[in-house]
Amino acid sequence: MSARATTRPGGRSARVQQSVHQAVRDLEAEVGRDALTVPLIAARAGVTPSTVYRRWGDLRELLSDVAVERLRPDTAPADHGGLRADLEAWAAQFAEEMSSTAGRTYIRDALLGDPGQGNAVRCSDYAVEQLKAIGVRAAGRGEAVPDVETLLDVLVAPLMYRILFRPSDLSTVYTDHLVAAALGRGPATPQTKS
Amino acid sequence: MSARATTRPGGRSARVQQSVHQAVRDLEAEVGRDALTVPLIAARAGVTPSTVYRRWGDLRELLSDVAVERLRPDTAPADHGGLRADLEAWAAQFAEEMSSTAGRTYIRDALLGDPGQGNAVRCSDYAVEQLKAIGVRAAGRGEAVPDVETLLDVLVAPLMYRILFRPSDLSTVYTDHLVAAALGRGPATPQTKS
Repeated sequence: MSARATTRPGGRSARVQQSVHQAVRDLEAEVGRDALTVPLIAARAGVTPSTVYRRWGDLRELLSDVAVERLRPDTAPADHGGLRADLEAWAAQFAEEMSSTAGRTYIRDALLGDPGQGNAVRCSDYAVEQLKAIGVRAAGRGEAVPDVETLLDVLVAPLMYRILFRPSDLSTVYTDHLVAAALGRGPATPQTKS
Repeated sequence: MSARATTRPGGRSARVQQSVHQAVRDLEAEVGRDALTVPLIAARAGVTPSTVYRRWGDLRELLSDVAVERLRPDTAPADHGGLRADLEAWAAQFAEEMSSTAGRTYIRDALLGDPGQGNAVRCSDYAVEQLKAIGVRAAGRGEAVPDVETLLDVLVAPLMYRILFRPSDLSTVYTDHLVAAALGRGPATPQTKS
């Protein structure tokens, strides 16, 4: 879920998106996000400001798109040989990345510049795709797999709720507990968090 | 969680807050939120714009404060004679109010104008207070009560996650299922949503 190059097949539209996204990432690192403006980004990307406004509406929507790209997982979830181990590793990594300063900023950007909720749904779909990949692998081993909506409710939702609404200890004690609950073996919340 | 008059004991500071919040609510109804500006709000509230900027920083932070006030529950949770019934009624009402157009707007405002997360925590605390009140009542009847952190994870978090990230059917089929899961009687997610 780190920054990744956006490489898409041809066309001017794809090239504009790539150069504008890259300009946002570069300028954010160079001048900080509070100094970002559409004219500054457009100049760096080699397009006109009106190109940016036509395509993204405003800076906030552009930042939302860039944030969602950054939240996109780089790789398939690691294979640790079993469903529980795979879910524990995935949940620990998800918690760590999403609760980092950068992760929180991207989540807020993704939600905030997104009145139609399309980018929020994309964030959720990234988690779904990863959890499905883990599930397919586990089913191939003959393991029983909770459906993905249950995993969203039991594993992903508490992490996102606590990141957004309630400062909490999201250590592996907590994420392992959530995985245990998802696998039907740990209904009670441990008392070590928040 | 509907609009409520903010009545607090004396002081100029409390009066300024009350008149500025009221001006936001009135103007939002009259001219729509996209037309709100700090000078417009200040003029209606009978204060100077600099008073608003000094106290709230900017429009977004003011809207965040107003949103949190609107998300504050008006009343104690209704007493339906048992823990399950109380939680089912509370969850159904929470889902209905938070997923309404107004509820979604207030949640977004509360989260997004709030870099320090204080208002998000207040939203979460409102839920905690209501769930604790239900729990105290149930304990008084001799019922076993899940701890409030479990109720946040199992009941509140999935509702907020789906409202923010994933359009879903939040009907009582779903909220009753979450309550059953919280009470340890329904681990699987029903297949009727999203």
